[in-house]
Amino acid sequence: MTQAVRHDSMRARNLGVVLGEVRRSGPITRAALAEITGLTKTTVSKMVGDLLDAGMVTESGALRDGERGRPGTAIDLSGERVAALGLEINVDYLSACVVDLTLSVRLRCAQAVDNHTATPVETLSHLQKLAHKAVDEARSQGLTIAGSALAVPGPVDGGLLHSAPNLGWHDVRVSDLLDFPVEVENEANLAALGELWFGSGAGDFLHVSGEIGIGAGLVVGGALFRGARGLAGELGHVVVSPDGPACRCGGRGCLEQYAGQEALLRAAGLGEPPGPDGQAGAAGTAGSGGVAGAAGALGPGGTAGPDGVAGPGGVAGPGGTAGVAGGIPELVERLRAGEAGALRACDRAGRALGVALTSTVHLMDPGTIVLGGIFAPLFPWIHGPAHDTMTARLATMRHAVPELTVSRLGGDAATLGAAGQVIHRIIADPGAHLAAARTPTAPR
Amino acid sequence: MTQAVRHDSMRARNLGVVLGEVRRSGPITRAALAEITGLTKTTVSKMVGDLLDAGMVTESGALRDGERGRPGTAIDLSGERVAALGLEINVDYLSACVVDLTLSVRLRCAQAVDNHTATPVETLSHLQKLAHKAVDEARSQGLTIAGSALAVPGPVDGGLLHSAPNLGWHDVRVSDLLDFPVEVENEANLAALGELWFGSGAGDFLHVSGEIGIGAGLVVGGALFRGARGLAGELGHVVVSPDGPACRCGGRGCLEQYAGQEALLRAAGLGEPPGPDGQAGAAGTAGSGGVAGAAGALGPGGTAGPDGVAGPGGVAGPGGTAGVAGGIPELVERLRAGEAGALRACDRAGRALGVALTSTVHLMDPGTIVLGGIFAPLFPWIHGPAHDTMTARLATMRHAVPELTVSRLGGDAATLGAAGQVIHRIIADPGAHLAAARTPTAPR
Repeated sequence: MTQAVRHDSMRARNLGVVLGEVRRSGPITRAALAEITGLTKTTVSKMVGDLLDAGMVTESGALRDGERGRPGTAIDLSGERVAALGLEINVDYLSACVVDLTLSVRLRCAQAVDNHTATPVETLSHLQKLAHKAVDEARSQGLTIAGSALAVPGPVDGGLLHSAPNLGWHDVRVSDLLDFPVEVENEANLAALGELWFGSGAGDFLHVSGEIGIGAGLVVGGALFRGARGLAGELGHVVVSPDGPACRCGGRGCLEQYAGQEALLRAAGLGEPPGPDGQAGAAGTAGSGGVAGAAGALGPGGTAGPDGVAGPGGVAGPGGTAGVAGGIPELVERLRAGEAGALRACDRAGRALGVALTSTVHLMDPGTIVLGGIFAPLFPWIHGPAHDTMTARLATMRHAVPELTVSRLGGDAATLGAAGQVIHRIIADPGAHLAAARTPTAPR
Repeated sequence: MTQAVRHDSMRARNLGVVLGEVRRSGPITRAALAEITGLTKTTVSKMVGDLLDAGMVTESGALRDGERGRPGTAIDLSGERVAALGLEINVDYLSACVVDLTLSVRLRCAQAVDNHTATPVETLSHLQKLAHKAVDEARSQGLTIAGSALAVPGPVDGGLLHSAPNLGWHDVRVSDLLDFPVEVENEANLAALGELWFGSGAGDFLHVSGEIGIGAGLVVGGALFRGARGLAGELGHVVVSPDGPACRCGGRGCLEQYAGQEALLRAAGLGEPPGPDGQAGAAGTAGSGGVAGAAGALGPGGTAGPDGVAGPGGVAGPGGTAGVAGGIPELVERLRAGEAGALRACDRAGRALGVALTSTVHLMDPGTIVLGGIFAPLFPWIHGPAHDTMTARLATMRHAVPELTVSRLGGDAATLGAAGQVIHRIIADPGAHLAAARTPTAPR
């Protein structure tokens, strides 16, 4: 690396230091910023000027500090211009949200779409329309979308979605099918980040997304653990029993075969939904047709935008557009009624979850464990057997067995996490945002 | 936080930036350091002065840069004064090494001690003597020990060693039994760092330490993953079969019960060693008596210090002081001779390792997997079944199954990792070292 290049990267780093300090301490004067960062006042003033021009900070008339000399105006983070678009594709809905630089949610919108019978092209065409509507609405609020991220229900490696069984997709390069740049990421990872930034998550937790597949996102010290290639957290394929039922992953006895949505409904006698290709959803095939966001897709605090942007009320909630007869809501009703088969199915799923989480705790040492997705409405019946299994297996060696809690964000977590990730990137590296400000990074 | 405190922390951070730049780019002039870091020349000169005083950098007469004006002298990292002590307690040996600020290994020494029949007080008394000898020898080379770290065979939480079954220790606060400050850390974590800094490890790998217990250390992007409380990587207790043999951890069917040293030797008909308390080492008790560092404790490149510091030649190597009749070397001989029972035992252990590593890959997404400890000499027989099991279970979902390789550092990895960790801390935060330079941080 040449010194010139390194000088540039040091300047970019210092810009991040200044903006980070504004976020932590704002409103703050330029003089105080120079004092704290150790940079010269000239450097700080130049950087603040660039950030003002980009609409990333705002300058108030308020005087601060008890310092001698000319009083400085205060600099603070601005939520008025720069924003991020978060998107999600799930089985039977699409959703979008817009979050500004101060992490305030400015807009949420969603659309009920039957994605498990649609091709990637069809689904992404719908998503693109939803994204454009969200961007138009954000623009009418004076916001500029500085970047977009998309949550998809499957592992992503270098932008390639390997497999999303509940959509019936394999090896789809999602961003190639959209007319705007977007960062594509596993739903489980983004849901964990959503829980961290917008939910009840403290700095150390494992967020479990129970759907047809079971994903997990580990947050340690406030940061998402991604593994070497971003493929970490595939909790659904942790081996519960090495000679158990065959799984679509090629293995046997994976957690998904005991506690995934299909396995659970089947065990409770709630039917065997057909897969997207018409095959019976037996173990080993990628069945689908489940209930989206049983904990309440886009549940809390949705603000419907005007002008054709569907509000969250139009999205399947707990009792929404179930593809399976009854599905999870029906299961919950049977559990409430004390039906033996339903209780047995949840007990079995909870114990399997306990075994898989035991291995997870030994390997990853999470803080608390937050259960989301279908495990949120099923929490009262899953929690006991999972907790007891973990305690029996972990208590001797670990003084404290991680607490099992329930997610409060529900189906909204991944969409918010997607937008929040873009905002965090921009704040950490504002130089990259300034450099890219003239190239399109969002739907036009 | 007050601005004064934050100012101090920013100054400390800048000191780390300057020293980090010296390490990356040295020899380098003060002018170039100011240019690259964006700090003022006055600030850089003051910091370089402090680092020179502390013996952390050295100044050469060599002129560098094609710049105009007064030529600057070049600053570089110095290996002449600041050094770190790495220590390790294993079943039948203690070891120490001294590493200087440039990560050159200046001294290795070791002592054969039968720790599995000794109390913590006895063992740590021996360790303290070894440490003092190493420090004296380092002093005679002009080095000052700036910090110490100790590798112990068990999980450590906040300085407390929870359990070290192969030593028969439980809940020992190790540093309380030594007369010098020492950072205590799990052997598996430090072995992974040793592999990273001194061995063949690239930036992304899982290092597996096979002993009586089986630990693992995950390195991602050049950094050790520790989990929320530093208890991550307990691969030995990943569940292979939920109803398998009882394990000392309170669980059943843990990997250790199939591929740990005792289980492996038992399965091969190589005897059931007595535990430290005289109990038969059946599943569920903390048996011991194994062979230390079968891959060659302190094997490669050991430099024996003079003056009473035992050289690595005095330590049990592959054919060394086995507590079990024959132990791993005997098993290796039988495997070479093609004995059916030995081959069956390794095949079973390899398949169990493959199942546990499958769960590990799904959860942690490591780069390569490096097998160390007893798995190094057993690699030719363990590798096949482990690899085949992983491929069968992982290949459908993951395009690339992580490669299984063999560790080249052997029994030395954790001791080197301990010393290297101290050096890396010092370079990342030289301010803390300068502040602590007047308080004792090593054996006197």
